[in-house]
Amino acid sequence: MTSSYDVIVVGGGHAGCEAAYAAATMGSQVLLITMNMQTIAQMSCNPAMGGVAKGQIVREIDALGGMSGIISDKTMIQFRMLNRSKGPAMWSPRCQSDRHAFAWEWRKTLENNNNVSFWQDSVNELLVKDNAVYGVKTMMGIVFHAKSVVLTNGTFLNGRMFIGEKTFGGGRTGEAAASGLTEQLVELGFESGRMKTGTPPRIDGRSLNYEAMEEQLGDTKPGKFSYSDTPALIEQKSCWITYTNQAVHDELKTGFEKSPMFTGRIKGLGPRYCPSVEDKINRFADKDRHQIFVEPEGKDTVEIYVNGFSTSLPEDVQLRALQKITGFERAKMFRPGYAVEYDYFPPTQLKHTLETHLIANLFFAGQINGTTGYEEAACQGLIAGINAHHTVCEKDPFTIKRSEGYIGVLIDDLITKGTEEPYRMFTSRAEYRTLLRQDNADIRLTEKGYKIGLASQQRYDALVEKQQKIAELTDAIQSKRVKPEGINDWLTTQNSSPLRETATLRTLVKRPEITAENVSELLAITLPDTTKFNEEVVEQTVIEIKYEDYLLREKQNADKLDRWENLSIGTEFDYDKLKALSFEGRDKLKRTRPSTIGQASRISGVSPSDISILLVYMGR
Amino acid sequence: MTSSYDVIVVGGGHAGCEAAYAAATMGSQVLLITMNMQTIAQMSCNPAMGGVAKGQIVREIDALGGMSGIISDKTMIQFRMLNRSKGPAMWSPRCQSDRHAFAWEWRKTLENNNNVSFWQDSVNELLVKDNAVYGVKTMMGIVFHAKSVVLTNGTFLNGRMFIGEKTFGGGRTGEAAASGLTEQLVELGFESGRMKTGTPPRIDGRSLNYEAMEEQLGDTKPGKFSYSDTPALIEQKSCWITYTNQAVHDELKTGFEKSPMFTGRIKGLGPRYCPSVEDKINRFADKDRHQIFVEPEGKDTVEIYVNGFSTSLPEDVQLRALQKITGFERAKMFRPGYAVEYDYFPPTQLKHTLETHLIANLFFAGQINGTTGYEEAACQGLIAGINAHHTVCEKDPFTIKRSEGYIGVLIDDLITKGTEEPYRMFTSRAEYRTLLRQDNADIRLTEKGYKIGLASQQRYDALVEKQQKIAELTDAIQSKRVKPEGINDWLTTQNSSPLRETATLRTLVKRPEITAENVSELLAITLPDTTKFNEEVVEQTVIEIKYEDYLLREKQNADKLDRWENLSIGTEFDYDKLKALSFEGRDKLKRTRPSTIGQASRISGVSPSDISILLVYMGR
Repeated sequence: MTSSYDVIVVGGGHAGCEAAYAAATMGSQVLLITMNMQTIAQMSCNPAMGGVAKGQIVREIDALGGMSGIISDKTMIQFRMLNRSKGPAMWSPRCQSDRHAFAWEWRKTLENNNNVSFWQDSVNELLVKDNAVYGVKTMMGIVFHAKSVVLTNGTFLNGRMFIGEKTFGGGRTGEAAASGLTEQLVELGFESGRMKTGTPPRIDGRSLNYEAMEEQLGDTKPGKFSYSDTPALIEQKSCWITYTNQAVHDELKTGFEKSPMFTGRIKGLGPRYCPSVEDKINRFADKDRHQIFVEPEGKDTVEIYVNGFSTSLPEDVQLRALQKITGFERAKMFRPGYAVEYDYFPPTQLKHTLETHLIANLFFAGQINGTTGYEEAACQGLIAGINAHHTVCEKDPFTIKRSEGYIGVLIDDLITKGTEEPYRMFTSRAEYRTLLRQDNADIRLTEKGYKIGLASQQRYDALVEKQQKIAELTDAIQSKRVKPEGINDWLTTQNSSPLRETATLRTLVKRPEITAENVSELLAITLPDTTKFNEEVVEQTVIEIKYEDYLLREKQNADKLDRWENLSIGTEFDYDKLKALSFEGRDKLKRTRPSTIGQASRISGVSPSDISILLVYMGR
Repeated sequence: MTSSYDVIVVGGGHAGCEAAYAAATMGSQVLLITMNMQTIAQMSCNPAMGGVAKGQIVREIDALGGMSGIISDKTMIQFRMLNRSKGPAMWSPRCQSDRHAFAWEWRKTLENNNNVSFWQDSVNELLVKDNAVYGVKTMMGIVFHAKSVVLTNGTFLNGRMFIGEKTFGGGRTGEAAASGLTEQLVELGFESGRMKTGTPPRIDGRSLNYEAMEEQLGDTKPGKFSYSDTPALIEQKSCWITYTNQAVHDELKTGFEKSPMFTGRIKGLGPRYCPSVEDKINRFADKDRHQIFVEPEGKDTVEIYVNGFSTSLPEDVQLRALQKITGFERAKMFRPGYAVEYDYFPPTQLKHTLETHLIANLFFAGQINGTTGYEEAACQGLIAGINAHHTVCEKDPFTIKRSEGYIGVLIDDLITKGTEEPYRMFTSRAEYRTLLRQDNADIRLTEKGYKIGLASQQRYDALVEKQQKIAELTDAIQSKRVKPEGINDWLTTQNSSPLRETATLRTLVKRPEITAENVSELLAITLPDTTKFNEEVVEQTVIEIKYEDYLLREKQNADKLDRWENLSIGTEFDYDKLKALSFEGRDKLKRTRPSTIGQASRISGVSPSDISILLVYMGR
């Protein structure tokens, strides 16, 4: 039963869903192969999207025309803008999701895309000829042909779960592992490794004493991820905060000798910034407590996710330790936490398009590349899906620069530096983070998404209109002269010093005490008609005015680096002919095959002098 | 991590859900152990509840206080009363369900029951001492203690799936099998066997041409399953009817040499009355077409269930054959059909309570007993759950007689006759089927359910009120005398002969041309205030009047048989002391251990003379 598609996407998680949606929306006939159509877009770990740096990624996916933002908006049960007390570059949207609704919404979204077909099965072989992939073969023995293939296997490749001294094959609890692919890829010349991740126990919410915990409410005025017209969140559910304590730690320690991590049975490295609770009390032995976020799994279930309590200790130790946490005295588990170890492929084997160097038309996205996190997976899926489609129709590679988005930072980091442990995004990874704000992802990326046929005309028109309004408001603020008598009363109420003489509205907007909270009032007092400028326009305009000099400097910096960044080397460059290169530098350059000097410069092991040698050779 | 419960239910399908709900509602602390909390109450096969005889079972479950009826009502997308053109004993409610919503509704229902706890894991050992079960041990190695245990393992015990020449371990597509339990039970002395069932391919509804098929609408005035106040169905979805043809059959035949059924690789017997399509064209070679029902899987999915096309032929043969069906020319599959073979335990090893003879406090329900069908499974779960609870609190066994309900027929058939192939309910299996109607399940069973603390006070009060109203209306019809001049005009419009003289309203109601459709009009014309009698009351009253003599005869029959039926033998009876019994009769009696003469008489191999010998011994 052979059939042909343009693009085959293997795996239906966050990466696979975005990849399938993107390629299909742009016009490819896509086949999504998933082991179980009931578990498309399962949130295997916490029921949340966004967070610091991750929220920015979701906004960027949305700006490009991907679906993670819209689906998050439609299924969230709480929204908070994190870091609102800091500068706007740090603001990060985060939501609690209804796990069940989120997954179903993704499935409906894909079903509603007429270019997406589905097949429930497990892929265990790639069809490769002349170093190019042309299809897959499944566990059922079925062959599907395609012009490009995106692998998004998550934790399923030779997945193995650990709870204390027990171990089970499987990619996720209750689900089988996938075999065959790693072995074939290694035979084709790929390097592979093992990584591990983990998840906390799931708890029966009816067994918790919420009165003993701190309530964490959603924002009074909840925002959203998508720049499109998704509906506002009306009814929010609270999370709860509690803490571990010495008794919890002592209890956990009784399980250390059976811990698969401490006894060396798990070889793969886990996510440093999302450590297990046993890791935390081991590494930070002086800390007498750790925060625990008690997160509801949905609007109509009692299941609870215990964020901060990821563990693979024996289940009896897990339960006894949990029951020593305030509010958890009578906690009942639905299932224990566990660790899962799985195969990944060091991402230095990829191009910026997420196509592999070794096998043409083969793309990798998500945990298979050594990343962790839904958002990290989703944005890779999006870029892989776009480029899988571009491969089909022989269009130019689509990439995002480090100065354009966190997505660019993530992919560039992965392919130039690789990663030894599950890679997670942080704002500190972005050198231009003041440019890469959650508020301007549309301005940064929607035109790019529109040009490739992913972001809709409607989105693009909305962006153009928004930009016109921003220009109009910027002009108005720039040209408006405010007299002391018209404004001093108001300034006084805001603890802002009164004007001595007429000044531009701009100088007032720049004052630090004029914030997102009161700026609309200021504009309403001073400008004739401000109702035509919506909140987003005001926010954007004010940020640009307030941080003008700083942003300009950053932009110039980025542009300068960009020129260097984009100096092309060519992936076929013969490094052996440059005898002066350091041994390690040449080796890394040959393995990573950077396409630009910028990428070459970020490869660990490539020294500044190696870069100079390259630049000299290239005539600079 | 040992914890103790009153009742452990193993498996979260239709049987497991009803068992857990019943025992918990009656007051037991219940632990439901399921391999995957995401797949609780999955409809593994067709997205429908009810149908001929099965719809009556759902009504009976509801009347007793179980949940299948309420959940079906809440999640149905089409309702039809089958056989409405026949007598009321044949009327059978059936709905199409939203598969996704149905499963989630069950999960919410169980979560909302504070006596139900959950554990995600797989049971592979029973803890047995002195021929009594006292707990289970799971794959994770965890021990749970309980006073009684209900096994509802479905097709998971050593489950093995077949598609053409391929075979995979697993209980359901994408889900692992369960091992260990069968082996232990056999060691404990249980007899086990293999059965098989199958399921059709799932289809992408976007690939079908509905214009070429016949539309099957839901009822104009859709009914429901529950006697309680579940909301009425508003928006219905259509099913579609098409047919196989000679070309389809020819295509299917090309796969026969690879068929796991015809080549003998599947040993277990499949459901005779729900055969695979290859079975149908093989057994009924002269039929040139078979009906195919095209059923939507939910209100917001494109997935389609192809009822009538269950198959385990190779997937390429499945697809080619499907595409020769009218309307399916461009059909795309989501996954192929497959057969699954699994362990069952001949149900003659059970008591009427569904407790096993060999091991005290151990109950079996559903496919493990050799049945097929959601409704058959659910009602067994209900009875097992009730009796598991009764075991915990040392109450009397709870059973339903053959004259009280299809549930009684089903269980009595199973434990007295056993079954060689998956047992499915039919109206023809019930000797008192005119008494066991879908319209009177509440009258038959709600009081029983109420007395054991399962059916709510509200349900019982509603029943009492309904019965009072029926009595009132019956009296009114009985005593009302109708004069010709008041009614003849109307009778003429109904093609009913005019009255010559005053007659009782009763004689008019008994006329065959006075039907469910026009009887309300008749009552409204002749009685002073009929608005106080709702539709159900009218229906019930009219049926009782119309079929009065017949029902009375049936009732007398049932009562007579009941006396014999209920003549107790005692499960500990020593058959060896009755030397006159036939060799086979004694053997079957010793294995089946009937508790009454009625049951003994239905055991195949027990002759009428064996029964006489028993009766003589017992002093009759």
